[in-house]
Amino acid sequence: MWPERELVMFDLPSYLRGKQVWVNCGIGQVLTDMTYSGRLADAMRYAVTAGGKRIRPILCAASAEAVGNADESAVLTTACALELIHTYSLIHDDLPAMDDDALRRGKPTCHIAFDEATAILAGDALLTLAFQALSTFKTPSGTPAEKWLWVIRNIAEAVGAKGMVEGQMRDVASEGGTLTFEELESIHRLKTGALISASVTSGAALAQASPSQMACLKTYAQNIGMAFQVVDDILNVEGDKTVMGKAVGTDQARSKNTYPSRIGMAASKEKAKTLIGNALQALSGFDTRAEALRAIASYIIERKK
Amino acid sequence: MWPERELVMFDLPSYLRGKQVWVNCGIGQVLTDMTYSGRLADAMRYAVTAGGKRIRPILCAASAEAVGNADESAVLTTACALELIHTYSLIHDDLPAMDDDALRRGKPTCHIAFDEATAILAGDALLTLAFQALSTFKTPSGTPAEKWLWVIRNIAEAVGAKGMVEGQMRDVASEGGTLTFEELESIHRLKTGALISASVTSGAALAQASPSQMACLKTYAQNIGMAFQVVDDILNVEGDKTVMGKAVGTDQARSKNTYPSRIGMAASKEKAKTLIGNALQALSGFDTRAEALRAIASYIIERKK
Repeated sequence: MWPERELVMFDLPSYLRGKQVWVNCGIGQVLTDMTYSGRLADAMRYAVTAGGKRIRPILCAASAEAVGNADESAVLTTACALELIHTYSLIHDDLPAMDDDALRRGKPTCHIAFDEATAILAGDALLTLAFQALSTFKTPSGTPAEKWLWVIRNIAEAVGAKGMVEGQMRDVASEGGTLTFEELESIHRLKTGALISASVTSGAALAQASPSQMACLKTYAQNIGMAFQVVDDILNVEGDKTVMGKAVGTDQARSKNTYPSRIGMAASKEKAKTLIGNALQALSGFDTRAEALRAIASYIIERKK
Repeated sequence: MWPERELVMFDLPSYLRGKQVWVNCGIGQVLTDMTYSGRLADAMRYAVTAGGKRIRPILCAASAEAVGNADESAVLTTACALELIHTYSLIHDDLPAMDDDALRRGKPTCHIAFDEATAILAGDALLTLAFQALSTFKTPSGTPAEKWLWVIRNIAEAVGAKGMVEGQMRDVASEGGTLTFEELESIHRLKTGALISASVTSGAALAQASPSQMACLKTYAQNIGMAFQVVDDILNVEGDKTVMGKAVGTDQARSKNTYPSRIGMAASKEKAKTLIGNALQALSGFDTRAEALRAIASYIIERKK
């Protein structure tokens, strides 16, 4: 099934551009409404407008579209919250005490452009802002309060002490040491996979997905989440620094545990392909409204940055 | 009215001890349920069990009791969330990039006991855990989903970019410089006052407070919040390091803007007294069920740590 993907006519670049504008407008509005002007707001805005791909918000929207029937403004609020959380995690990951990165998306990282205290606080404020946005949505709307609570819980679980933060903790702790393949997979599942899953499932929940649709979308998300990380590792070895806007070869320099370092480059590429195949298989019960999700899966493996 | 407070028989130490046990049990349960074992969970538990006074959870509970009719387990969940957020803020405030404190509540701060990366992540995870706990509460219960959304929003607003984090940002930025009295007050209102207000108003909301009760309790909270900070500043000059479990004289050493440094010690003490008087006045319409809130107001000004 998977090699046939090339035949489908879906203009993904145009879709992605449209959604990026959509989520950027939403984020701009949230930042204007919910921050004072000043250094903290400047740092938050700097980090959040540094040119990310907006993959998580777009997955949220595409998942809602695949199911149908979502209230678009509810999806936008959730999409923005997901990107705010992703941005907070990048700011904190880049700090000197963690990955100590000076460059992100081709620009100085937040603690370089501002300072460390400001970067820590901007991250804290973005995380908080996400939950504020998710709880501020006006009822009455198409989306009942119970659904919002579900979305908040779904996202909080994904990014907390049994999700993204735990993944980052294990990642930092493992630097320089050697992990088993299972430990490496669990780090990726927690650090990257959990939020990608939450993005897809939150969008699906807002669109009133049935339990079986939800299960399929979860499988899709878990597979592309893992593929995303495998490709990230591959690009850190083979990628072009200019295209990527960040340093390459850094994983090896830090003796990080990556797919290429654990199973070799050829097996890593094979694994990415299998995962994307699984993801597409999970969508087989969906109609053409899932075309964006399908195209995104293919994009993940073909991306250069 | 305020000097007569001494005549009321209310065993505050016993009340506080009981509530501390109550909230500590709740926090222990949340940590057990919502974290893996390991270094991250250890750091979270270390910070949260370091012997805080649990003032915010207790205010939440006392406020709910003053109004009456709250579902106790809903109040407990909220009380725990407030303390988790307070603890996260202390961990991040103590970091080398911020206040650089090595001692907190008589014990090494989190980044000293563990390391900086772990401390940053433990703070992040505690903040996230608070929102997870608030959104995990099982419906059906006495507390409808709309009310939970209100509480989440109320707390998120208080601790984010227009609340606590902004206050910390302004506080860090002001070090070494001189603030106007208004700027100093705004820092305290944001950094300490906002979360204390949210503690009181969240408890009141869970107990179905009327708009006029809510307004009175907000006034109470704003006054004790400000008094709390004034007394903190006073204790940093006159307090006993052994009793307080942390260094004193640190504000002056860092040329921090404090009430004593701006308006002098005598005027600071007078101000604390006036604020507590205002707080008690705001409770005049409440019956004996508000006795705990009244006693806490008096305790704030009399505390030695």
